[in-house]
Amino acid sequence: MELTATSIWGAVTAVRRQAPLVHNITNYVVMNNTANALLALGASPVMAHAENEASEMAVLAGALVVNIGTLSDPWIRAMHLALPAARARHIPVVLDPVGAGATAYRTQTVRELISLGPPTILRGNASEIMAVHQDEARTKGVDSAEASSTALAAARAIHQRHGCVVSISGETDYVIHEGGTLAIRNGHPMMPRVTGLGCTASALCGAFAAVEKDAALATAAAMAVMGVAGEMAAEGCPGPGSFQVRFLDALYVLTEEDLRRRLRIVPEIG
Amino acid sequence: MELTATSIWGAVTAVRRQAPLVHNITNYVVMNNTANALLALGASPVMAHAENEASEMAVLAGALVVNIGTLSDPWIRAMHLALPAARARHIPVVLDPVGAGATAYRTQTVRELISLGPPTILRGNASEIMAVHQDEARTKGVDSAEASSTALAAARAIHQRHGCVVSISGETDYVIHEGGTLAIRNGHPMMPRVTGLGCTASALCGAFAAVEKDAALATAAAMAVMGVAGEMAAEGCPGPGSFQVRFLDALYVLTEEDLRRRLRIVPEIG
Amino acid sequence: MELTATSIWGAVTAVRRQAPLVHNITNYVVMNNTANALLALGASPVMAHAENEASEMAVLAGALVVNIGTLSDPWIRAMHLALPAARARHIPVVLDPVGAGATAYRTQTVRELISLGPPTILRGNASEIMAVHQDEARTKGVDSAEASSTALAAARAIHQRHGCVVSISGETDYVIHEGGTLAIRNGHPMMPRVTGLGCTASALCGAFAAVEKDAALATAAAMAVMGVAGEMAAEGCPGPGSFQVRFLDALYVLTEEDLRRRLRIVPEIG
Repeated sequence: MELTATSIWGAVTAVRRQAPLVHNITNYVVMNNTANALLALGASPVMAHAENEASEMAVLAGALVVNIGTLSDPWIRAMHLALPAARARHIPVVLDPVGAGATAYRTQTVRELISLGPPTILRGNASEIMAVHQDEARTKGVDSAEASSTALAAARAIHQRHGCVVSISGETDYVIHEGGTLAIRNGHPMMPRVTGLGCTASALCGAFAAVEKDAALATAAAMAVMGVAGEMAAEGCPGPGSFQVRFLDALYVLTEEDLRRRLRIVPEIG
Repeated sequence: MELTATSIWGAVTAVRRQAPLVHNITNYVVMNNTANALLALGASPVMAHAENEASEMAVLAGALVVNIGTLSDPWIRAMHLALPAARARHIPVVLDPVGAGATAYRTQTVRELISLGPPTILRGNASEIMAVHQDEARTKGVDSAEASSTALAAARAIHQRHGCVVSISGETDYVIHEGGTLAIRNGHPMMPRVTGLGCTASALCGAFAAVEKDAALATAAAMAVMGVAGEMAAEGCPGPGSFQVRFLDALYVLTEEDLRRRLRIVPEIG
Repeated sequence: MELTATSIWGAVTAVRRQAPLVHNITNYVVMNNTANALLALGASPVMAHAENEASEMAVLAGALVVNIGTLSDPWIRAMHLALPAARARHIPVVLDPVGAGATAYRTQTVRELISLGPPTILRGNASEIMAVHQDEARTKGVDSAEASSTALAAARAIHQRHGCVVSISGETDYVIHEGGTLAIRNGHPMMPRVTGLGCTASALCGAFAAVEKDAALATAAAMAVMGVAGEMAAEGCPGPGSFQVRFLDALYVLTEEDLRRRLRIVPEIG
């Protein structure tokens, strides 16, 4: 499928029409934001992390989003149950390796999760993607110390090995898929000054993957919508507090015209 | 007591004057919102979930709010300690059965909590109330797939059996109490596009129950204030991000005149 | 070093320039707010609480902030690992004794943490500071029932015994340090109507301590910036929802002129 404004807009309307249930096993910092972003886009979020219900909830959902942001052992156990349960039912899985490379615990957890069966979509910043690939990566907590292009080789290697769509987010967002590499040059410098927008991107990947079988299109749609809504939110915006509010409003009001006018997508760069 | 704008406004001023401490054992997604809603209304929130302090904190408070939104075993153990401790001191208890019916774990947990001794107030959406009553309920994650009126029979049966006030929230909010059933037709379609407003309603039930012995009035006050503040927040509102902000502002500035002018309450419907 | 607008502004520019990594082991209610406040100020937050990575993360950071707001045993174990790890590397530690005095569990946890080695900065409200000192303190949940000046003697005793800078927040904020006691009279009555601003003050203490060796200056800078940004946010503000948003914006846009014009600091009061 072509990755264009037309196909991306089709995915947006599909989310709004179908209101897919997205099951998130995610971190404490962003739960509220990502739930609100999913609702603003038109999806229906659920957060559930207990071992007692993780696999049961995963199979009720249209997509599973696993995010290792504030990790601990009970959460890892839930991820180990939910991920195979979703995969067994062909429910798309998004993995967000928050802070991979910062500590051994995070890096190892991500690799173990991938070894259970690769996710449909892996989305992270450059440092995280390189850490997943065992490259040298300078990671600074959960913020990347690298430009997104630095991780292109690592992302391609992960895609080759595991077959998953890989997205590297940054000033330019990349989507590495079977057909090649796509670059999206939307967004705004205020976005890294708001916590959890990377995690929100992963949650939106889940919403789109729930309604769109082509994982490359689902990922491109999520990254495009993030960037375009970010630009809309940043216009005349006094600071990151207002940005957060306007970003949710933008997800809610986004029109085909907004998307067409603003989208800066380079379908095949390499 | 009559359930009118006058008695509801009396409950609002009592919360503002007494600033009751409300102890919440609630879910990760909404903790921040519900704490802020309680503060905006004039109450004083505390969140504490450790087994080590749950019962000690519960008896310091004017009300206990138990919400099963992001459940796990350690939290259930805290609920099992706090709930009887509050009841033994005649401290009102609000139970919010978030996602009951979605997984066996949630449904079972709610029933076990009720078997410890019924709450003063049970508040949920239609799917959740029907799941508590063991009816057939189509639950979709934490969002109801049913209109609130669908659960009236279940709510009445729960009220009959356990004596608690039951509230079903939805486009119309119902309050089932000793004197009959009351309907509140306030609110706005943007409210389900913001996460945790149901949980916020339960938290406000706690604030009102802390200052008002008549649990039916406390529940009606919470649902009325939610709906009226929601309408105030929605006026000219561009999207759910702005709605959240304005909703807290509306709770803070709400006047008797706002309440009188907007309240659409039908005191006895069946 | 003199504690003036000039030295405080120097600390602000140092945070913006260096973007220090601040490791937070903090409570669920405020994680999102404090992460956003750190980002708005110019720092880089990370939240990590697993025993498996707490000490590894702590030594990557420029400062460690430990906050006992929604305590449980696994979190205490992480604090017991991270705190000594940070101290061993001379990484400044901020301790926020949220709700100390409300339950034995919290009071005891704070005292145990201090016995591991005192923090660089201890920041709390009057009730909490008095509880740490084993004074009689009327604590109401997590909100202080006392004016900040009530805790001056307790704060001075803690400073004498443990050597840490102690800050008591309230209508007047105090900073008790080697050179004496400083009072900052900024802020706005709407601030206690927003959850987590005390926790945010502690997080900002961490950001400043990461770039400024003089802990008294770091603490004064945090309290001054909180108060000044709070005043900026409150101007023409309709309620606490809007306040939250504007507060983050104010942290982001704060200029030297804002600070100079508004700062009401009394460098040595006793």
